[in-house]
Amino acid sequence: MNRRLVLSAGAAPLAMAAFAQGADAGNAGPVQAGNCTERDDRPNIIFFLVDDMGWQDTSVPFWNQKTRYNELYETPNMERLAAQGMLFTQAYASSVSSPSRCSMMTGANAARHRVTNWTLEKGVPTDMESDVLELPEWNCNGIAQVPGTANTFVAKSFVQYLKDSGYHTIHCGKAHWGAIDTPGESPYHFGFEVNIAGHAAGGLASYLGESRYGHDKGGNPTSLMSIPGLEKYWDTDTFATEALTLEAIKALDKAKKYNQPFYLYMSHYAIHIPIEKDNRFFRKYKAKGMSDKEAAYATLIEGMDKSLGDLMDWLEENGEADNTIIIFMGDNGGYATGEYWRDEPLYTQNSPLKCGKGSAYEGGIREPMIVFWPGVTEPGSRCDSYILAEDIYPSVLDMAGVRYDDAPQHIDGRSFVPLLNGAGDPSEGRNLYWNFPNLWGETGPGIGSTCTVRSGDWKLIYFYESGKKELYNIPDDIGEENDLAQERPDIVKKLSKELGKYLRKAGAQRPSFKATGMPCPWPDEI
Amino acid sequence: MNRRLVLSAGAAPLAMAAFAQGADAGNAGPVQAGNCTERDDRPNIIFFLVDDMGWQDTSVPFWNQKTRYNELYETPNMERLAAQGMLFTQAYASSVSSPSRCSMMTGANAARHRVTNWTLEKGVPTDMESDVLELPEWNCNGIAQVPGTANTFVAKSFVQYLKDSGYHTIHCGKAHWGAIDTPGESPYHFGFEVNIAGHAAGGLASYLGESRYGHDKGGNPTSLMSIPGLEKYWDTDTFATEALTLEAIKALDKAKKYNQPFYLYMSHYAIHIPIEKDNRFFRKYKAKGMSDKEAAYATLIEGMDKSLGDLMDWLEENGEADNTIIIFMGDNGGYATGEYWRDEPLYTQNSPLKCGKGSAYEGGIREPMIVFWPGVTEPGSRCDSYILAEDIYPSVLDMAGVRYDDAPQHIDGRSFVPLLNGAGDPSEGRNLYWNFPNLWGETGPGIGSTCTVRSGDWKLIYFYESGKKELYNIPDDIGEENDLAQERPDIVKKLSKELGKYLRKAGAQRPSFKATGMPCPWPDEI
Repeated sequence: MNRRLVLSAGAAPLAMAAFAQGADAGNAGPVQAGNCTERDDRPNIIFFLVDDMGWQDTSVPFWNQKTRYNELYETPNMERLAAQGMLFTQAYASSVSSPSRCSMMTGANAARHRVTNWTLEKGVPTDMESDVLELPEWNCNGIAQVPGTANTFVAKSFVQYLKDSGYHTIHCGKAHWGAIDTPGESPYHFGFEVNIAGHAAGGLASYLGESRYGHDKGGNPTSLMSIPGLEKYWDTDTFATEALTLEAIKALDKAKKYNQPFYLYMSHYAIHIPIEKDNRFFRKYKAKGMSDKEAAYATLIEGMDKSLGDLMDWLEENGEADNTIIIFMGDNGGYATGEYWRDEPLYTQNSPLKCGKGSAYEGGIREPMIVFWPGVTEPGSRCDSYILAEDIYPSVLDMAGVRYDDAPQHIDGRSFVPLLNGAGDPSEGRNLYWNFPNLWGETGPGIGSTCTVRSGDWKLIYFYESGKKELYNIPDDIGEENDLAQERPDIVKKLSKELGKYLRKAGAQRPSFKATGMPCPWPDEI
Repeated sequence: MNRRLVLSAGAAPLAMAAFAQGADAGNAGPVQAGNCTERDDRPNIIFFLVDDMGWQDTSVPFWNQKTRYNELYETPNMERLAAQGMLFTQAYASSVSSPSRCSMMTGANAARHRVTNWTLEKGVPTDMESDVLELPEWNCNGIAQVPGTANTFVAKSFVQYLKDSGYHTIHCGKAHWGAIDTPGESPYHFGFEVNIAGHAAGGLASYLGESRYGHDKGGNPTSLMSIPGLEKYWDTDTFATEALTLEAIKALDKAKKYNQPFYLYMSHYAIHIPIEKDNRFFRKYKAKGMSDKEAAYATLIEGMDKSLGDLMDWLEENGEADNTIIIFMGDNGGYATGEYWRDEPLYTQNSPLKCGKGSAYEGGIREPMIVFWPGVTEPGSRCDSYILAEDIYPSVLDMAGVRYDDAPQHIDGRSFVPLLNGAGDPSEGRNLYWNFPNLWGETGPGIGSTCTVRSGDWKLIYFYESGKKELYNIPDDIGEENDLAQERPDIVKKLSKELGKYLRKAGAQRPSFKATGMPCPWPDEI
């Protein structure tokens, strides 16, 4: 199922030279003191992460055929990026935001970092209450680079490594790494030198400048999700997505003057709820016959896509397009569980994938992903190898030529650079693991306390509460309609064993039964 | 001339235990990954730096007698701090701001870092033009932690070390490390996690909230010196010194929640020009018969002192007073050269010291300094050993127990911790060096292109343009009235040799003569 790419003879030397130089710069230890004006010509890196974006929320087909959603939504700049770079058809993340983002930032699997549900307030787990399950004491305070806070995973971020090695590091948009009043609430804590609008919250009060992004007339936040730092756009008609883009471009203008390679984390609040309409695009989608809600959703997508295009334009206009890697990705599946925000039938918004955000099914965890590395990725190429959110960490550091041997945490992620340059396939023989010993809060197929393994074509989901196991052959059955657990007990047994072994080794947590006080069995204990 | 302090038996164990623990934490390498809630109980550190504060701009006598200025000015909180800690009578810095601040931040002597005059705009030296001297191409862009910018000294800051070792790092007020549009313009570049109102500029447009600290009604800065980040105090009567203090205290409230030791760099824009009156204190000084200008100057001092007291109050109210080191210092001599701002006779405002800011005489370089380390410094003690601005770097890291062996730059500074705890005297047998191959812009005694050495009681000043050398016995002649160069050619020769040797070894720069194109001789070449 994996496709290999062979670099064209022309492209390889350029890219490899850039990479080798990067590697030298990164591994040479501390910078030379004194007056050194030599330019560090490692590539710039833009990580463009979209919140709650479904696999089908784009006009770019990530499946083997163009779907109805691909026809409805318009993302011309994703198409432009895909035409230049490599499209990943099997990129995975966790089913909710914090686990994905903490894995990206630390390289650790969610089973290990234990930030398994979404974070917000210090010491306050966000799980739904259950009569049956007692949930474990997970890391509801998120991650930090220092000890001292309970329920926090301590790790060194890849951004800190980038900064230490000489990158100028810019955060723009949603952060969501540490709970309010913990060190990890601030992007500056993790090595960013610029923070535009990032804080503890994983959502937003409003996209509307007219609503001051969630501030009252006195300038006070009306919610824990009010977007900070965009005061200059208050009382204008600037949609948050546009405001963030304008600010990101200002930061890039500054970065250009610094004569350093830059890392821009363009982390949109879009397309998270509230699904407010972006008037720049609304009429177009209404004209397609979409409902108000669905048309508004489409405008969130296209506004995000315009942001991508604006950044690509900036790179071209500033002579940086040939030396900038762009990684486009989503952090979890598209929202598909509430009638308040969506009009399509529940659980179908990521079709052909099953369910959406919060679910262990593909709709919850499969992400749109495109990587463009000038001179390295073959234009318009596709890659069917699977990767997981935690792979961002080693991949970005690999791209920048920075070693991370002294990271205090174990890195579960694997660099996907070999997939980009055709040097190999890190997913061969590798299982992907998920652990969600939590209760998200909404209900739907695959939403519950689960752990999951993907191994080659097979995927096993284990439900902690019921003890049920489901087995799917993903390439044959992307919609997870045919549970093969009864037919293939051999594979169920094998994967249960591998999953259980990994979880215990990684220090994963599991729920208990309130009735007995006993922990739910691991998947290989039942 | 040096006084030793012996720790009382009661105080020592507490302090040493704290320090040893700090040392362990700092030297243990990367933090442990995972869930670690153990509190890092190294001491908090507040570095309270006042801009352009003269040695006599306080009611605390730093000389061997109380002067007229000590009687005029009221700094009750400096008195309170001095009663708890150790007062340094011979603390030195450079004669202008940037060299001092860059030395503090890098540990390098100004001769080495070459940021020898004040910085502001990228690539634009701020020196006065001369018909006689061609000035060297000094580092007019300041310092940075990365290469890539011309005329920049590359070094790793002690703040970065503090942050990396687990301190929460807060910048409040004047930064002034890198020119506009260079990486060093931002405190975040140097490892700060919070930045309140710091940027490239070394001065301020206005102290007045009514003037929006130098912003017009449209919110645009009216000057490169407009203070950023204090928008919430615009159009109020909040003096900048007070606004900074209020924001610093908010940052401390937050730091307390983080459960980390904190480093607060409280770097007041006060008492730099413009000498605007702080109405909270103005009438009091008018009642003493002072002129409007001199009374306004006195209010800048007392406003700064109130800030110190507010921080000390916060520490006491929050149970952090016993675990917080406070270092109080000025960055260069008091302003004494312009009639526009001061009414006293020119060059007398630092009396008994000669001249002021910009001068090689004591008025330009001798600073008020007090250090309070609970359990370590003997209450109300005085120390006559000399120290220099660059000593801040190793001293703070020493206090925090953080090693800096891998710093890319050479550290000229020496830790003054042995002076605090009575373990030794790092100034014994040590010379202090200054190099100012620049022209500041104003005129007065000792203001010009000079280099200087202090060696024991002796001080030699060499004027590059004239070749003149002056020699003073400082303890005997603090006002530098009796030039002993003719009487003691032996000492002149010895110190000239040591000064010339050091400057060449440190890679110091010197001016040239425009007429001949020849460099000015080093002090030991003439």
